[in-house]
Amino acid sequence: MEPVQRVALGEAPADTVVRGGRVVQVLSGAVERRDVAVVDGTIAAQFEDATPVVGPETTVVDATGGVVVPGFVDAHAHMDHDQTLERTAPHVLAGGTTTLIEELTFTGANFGARAVAEFLALDDELPLDVRPTVPPQELFEAFEPAHADGEGRAALIDCLEDDRVVGAGETGWIYVVGRDSGAGDLYRAVRERGKRVVGHGAGASGRKLAAFATVATIDHEVIAGDEVLERLENGIHVVGRFGTTRDDIDAVVDAYERVGPAGISLGTDGVSPGLLLEEGYMDAVLREAIDRGVDPVDAVRMGTVHTAEHFGLDRKGVLAPGYDADLVVLDDLETVDVDTVLAGGEMVVTDGTPDVGPWSHDYPVSFYDSIHLTPDPAVFEVEAGAAVDGEVRAIRYERELATAETTVEPAVGNGHLHARPDANVAKATIVDRHPDGEGRGFTGFVEGFGIEHGAVATSLSVERTGVVVLGTDEGAMETALRRVKEMGGGWVTVDGDGVDVAFPTPVAGVCTEVETVREAADRYEAVEASVRSLGVDIDRPLFGLQCLCHPGVPAIRLTFSGYADILGREVLGLSPEE
Amino acid sequence: MEPVQRVALGEAPADTVVRGGRVVQVLSGAVERRDVAVVDGTIAAQFEDATPVVGPETTVVDATGGVVVPGFVDAHAHMDHDQTLERTAPHVLAGGTTTLIEELTFTGANFGARAVAEFLALDDELPLDVRPTVPPQELFEAFEPAHADGEGRAALIDCLEDDRVVGAGETGWIYVVGRDSGAGDLYRAVRERGKRVVGHGAGASGRKLAAFATVATIDHEVIAGDEVLERLENGIHVVGRFGTTRDDIDAVVDAYERVGPAGISLGTDGVSPGLLLEEGYMDAVLREAIDRGVDPVDAVRMGTVHTAEHFGLDRKGVLAPGYDADLVVLDDLETVDVDTVLAGGEMVVTDGTPDVGPWSHDYPVSFYDSIHLTPDPAVFEVEAGAAVDGEVRAIRYERELATAETTVEPAVGNGHLHARPDANVAKATIVDRHPDGEGRGFTGFVEGFGIEHGAVATSLSVERTGVVVLGTDEGAMETALRRVKEMGGGWVTVDGDGVDVAFPTPVAGVCTEVETVREAADRYEAVEASVRSLGVDIDRPLFGLQCLCHPGVPAIRLTFSGYADILGREVLGLSPEE
Repeated sequence: MEPVQRVALGEAPADTVVRGGRVVQVLSGAVERRDVAVVDGTIAAQFEDATPVVGPETTVVDATGGVVVPGFVDAHAHMDHDQTLERTAPHVLAGGTTTLIEELTFTGANFGARAVAEFLALDDELPLDVRPTVPPQELFEAFEPAHADGEGRAALIDCLEDDRVVGAGETGWIYVVGRDSGAGDLYRAVRERGKRVVGHGAGASGRKLAAFATVATIDHEVIAGDEVLERLENGIHVVGRFGTTRDDIDAVVDAYERVGPAGISLGTDGVSPGLLLEEGYMDAVLREAIDRGVDPVDAVRMGTVHTAEHFGLDRKGVLAPGYDADLVVLDDLETVDVDTVLAGGEMVVTDGTPDVGPWSHDYPVSFYDSIHLTPDPAVFEVEAGAAVDGEVRAIRYERELATAETTVEPAVGNGHLHARPDANVAKATIVDRHPDGEGRGFTGFVEGFGIEHGAVATSLSVERTGVVVLGTDEGAMETALRRVKEMGGGWVTVDGDGVDVAFPTPVAGVCTEVETVREAADRYEAVEASVRSLGVDIDRPLFGLQCLCHPGVPAIRLTFSGYADILGREVLGLSPEE
Repeated sequence: MEPVQRVALGEAPADTVVRGGRVVQVLSGAVERRDVAVVDGTIAAQFEDATPVVGPETTVVDATGGVVVPGFVDAHAHMDHDQTLERTAPHVLAGGTTTLIEELTFTGANFGARAVAEFLALDDELPLDVRPTVPPQELFEAFEPAHADGEGRAALIDCLEDDRVVGAGETGWIYVVGRDSGAGDLYRAVRERGKRVVGHGAGASGRKLAAFATVATIDHEVIAGDEVLERLENGIHVVGRFGTTRDDIDAVVDAYERVGPAGISLGTDGVSPGLLLEEGYMDAVLREAIDRGVDPVDAVRMGTVHTAEHFGLDRKGVLAPGYDADLVVLDDLETVDVDTVLAGGEMVVTDGTPDVGPWSHDYPVSFYDSIHLTPDPAVFEVEAGAAVDGEVRAIRYERELATAETTVEPAVGNGHLHARPDANVAKATIVDRHPDGEGRGFTGFVEGFGIEHGAVATSLSVERTGVVVLGTDEGAMETALRRVKEMGGGWVTVDGDGVDVAFPTPVAGVCTEVETVREAADRYEAVEASVRSLGVDIDRPLFGLQCLCHPGVPAIRLTFSGYADILGREVLGLSPEE
């Protein structure tokens, strides 16, 4: 007889018993006084009194006065940038989170299937369960040729053979609606295996959303209650997010109050080191949802079993016999104060503090060699002839990451166009860092960032293999780009005296290896302070810069061969007349 | 671009448009005026007005005044006995049912993996989607040696490689709780593949139910609201059933009123030809649920998406883009009057009447040769020495299929024990018809069936490979058994004049091939009338007889080597002292 059954029958001692708490039964919705017995990393059973399975070797966790819930499942994690997961994992666990549906947007754009392999290795090495999606970015060709060839496509599809890979990752609707997508084979392979396609449906509605629903099964881009309902009616599971990218809890609460919790999950969509320290992880998401009106039991359902069911994690999300022993003791259900966390039966958090990690992980050498470009001053130059009546096409930064197409009048000198800080016009450059990128690059103009002098560069460009540089003078921009390359990726600011702050993110060019989240947060704060000191005055200066090339948010972005007109799905040049 | 997307975008004509109805949105719970467009067997999208996708070749279904719901999914079907599925399928479809989670308890006990193959072939041939579970009966060894050897076990496990096989089938808790089961490898293989184990948890509660939950994921044996809740709290999905076996709708309604619809599905647990004509199929189940207090939208959810989600049928149960075009138009949502059914986009029911079928299916020759026994008069004989003080152990038929252990005083003659109709004591025999059964058989006594003369025999024994014979005299019993063998299976009654009714079920020994459900129902009615004419006076005489060997219902049953003490899991002899 399997040990789990012997314990369930009360005939053998458990490894661990969580005693005295009230348990949230996510299927029935009841909250009941129960002891929970764990053996071999698995929930054996709940007991009204687990005394029969407490042996001399049994670890007893006193949950008296607390509430016991399943480990939270982040329905949309982005823990593949800023800082490596082996470093942030203790904080993720301390946020009551034991499973990540992990997007590989940053590492995957650059390393494709090799990124999946590393995150599956992390799943093996960390007590956290990592359930990655296959990153499709190498296959996208809406604005530039796809990076992956047939072999690369096959390698991505092959990732689906691993049971832990739950589908294909974040897919902007603009890549797949109304056109054949280079990722079509991947999506078909996903659905044939009964796995899931994660959408990015920002701004899609009506016929476009219906067309998107033929591809995507889940979407986290809901900024209003009506958007939640429209997705549900198109068969799309919804993730309400609260994290670095956005706070959409109000949208979810609005929909929840109208139709209840079915079809809705919760997720972070990425949490920066600073926010991780300040707010927490999934505990913060649930706390916000409850604060704003979601019944606590429903919030737990949205943060556990709903996501597990959508992604077919059939041993997760419920505290029942045979399920993984991922379990959280909260001091209080309403405030989601995490006291104790068991992950796969292992005690990983006590009194709200991680008992384990941070860890190390051996990335392949190639992960430290990801900035394949030769800084060339010419890339930052724009010939005066590009202007028509002195005007060029430009990106106007609006708010909340949105941009609009505009025209600006750059300064002219030496037969070239330059930034005009007095008119809030800067230069923005993207240079491809992919080995196949052949140093492609484009320099355009942006209005509204507020930068007054110097430059800032980052290799953490969203969904693209580029290094993005914003600046007012070409020399500073070149210095910043050169330093990013030297560091193997990262953030660099340059002011009148040269490099001001340089923060390396050498792992895949997108993650720092600093050991503590505190240090990463401090380093980020320093970068942000430096960027502000250059005059940048938008709301979220770093993310705004990272998104300058992000095709997931309208209307106009940088791409390697010009401006990407996101909704028109074409590449535009500098001339306003083209 | 895939056709489904072109139609979703409103840019290409649909094959079929269902216009003018109100659509039940099972994820949001809304009921809204929508047209539904179908192409290539798939839902393309819902439209407020589908005019743009109605072309000259488009079939338009007028649903004005009606309600459009997803095709029903029977969460626990038993359509592998009584009559072949290719004959009953038109009525199943007319009951709004487009998908069966199909148990193979009858065909599978005798044909194992070969039964799965036939039902997958039926899935190919019929517009109905058949999603079988692997029948574990060949592996059970609680009372008798398992029929399957290593090769047979491997063949069963191999069935799981087909995506349409959703798990392993009905598994009595007595086989797996508190002991190692011969089917353990099968269940582990099921769970490794993320598939489901269908339980049969009749009477399990407390520690036993928790232990059962380490194996089973879903259970349809709930006869009270508290049993529903206890299953949910053990992570077991619940099926509320209404069919030939039982009516448990009150249990489900009781639980539903306390905790809502989550975790609950609806199913039939088998519908006889007579009930199929009289009540319908899943339409009847939903109708009963709504009649007794389930909100109609919740009833639809329980009859569609809940089941699809549990079994990972990720393209079923929702009327959304990319889902299978399984769709029902109801004249009225409250009464669940089926008007039109589309199955995989094909129109199969119009004005409540099937447009298609019945079909034929070529079963292998072996399916017509399944009664492997040589009728031997000795099997019906019981030596007088078996009694102690004139008494022998016996089965007392109580009610609702339940039995209790008792002792009776049989008649004595010629050194043998005989039935005593005056004391409501009959003989009951089971003879193995499996090719490996070597003619094993056992004759015991039953009290309470009411039989006064003659005999009745059937090869439709529940979960066992036996022919069951009930009678008051050994000659009649032998005649009945002999005739069952001659027919290749079926029902036979014998009265004073010899065979009264003989109804062959030659397909696997458990299904008639008569073409119409009407004829099958009439034939069954004739069998039942004949059985009644013998004096049998229990509630459901045929099912009661079939269950005389059914290990899924306590307390004492026939097995090939004695009485099966179901809860004690041992085989008992005739002597009350053993």
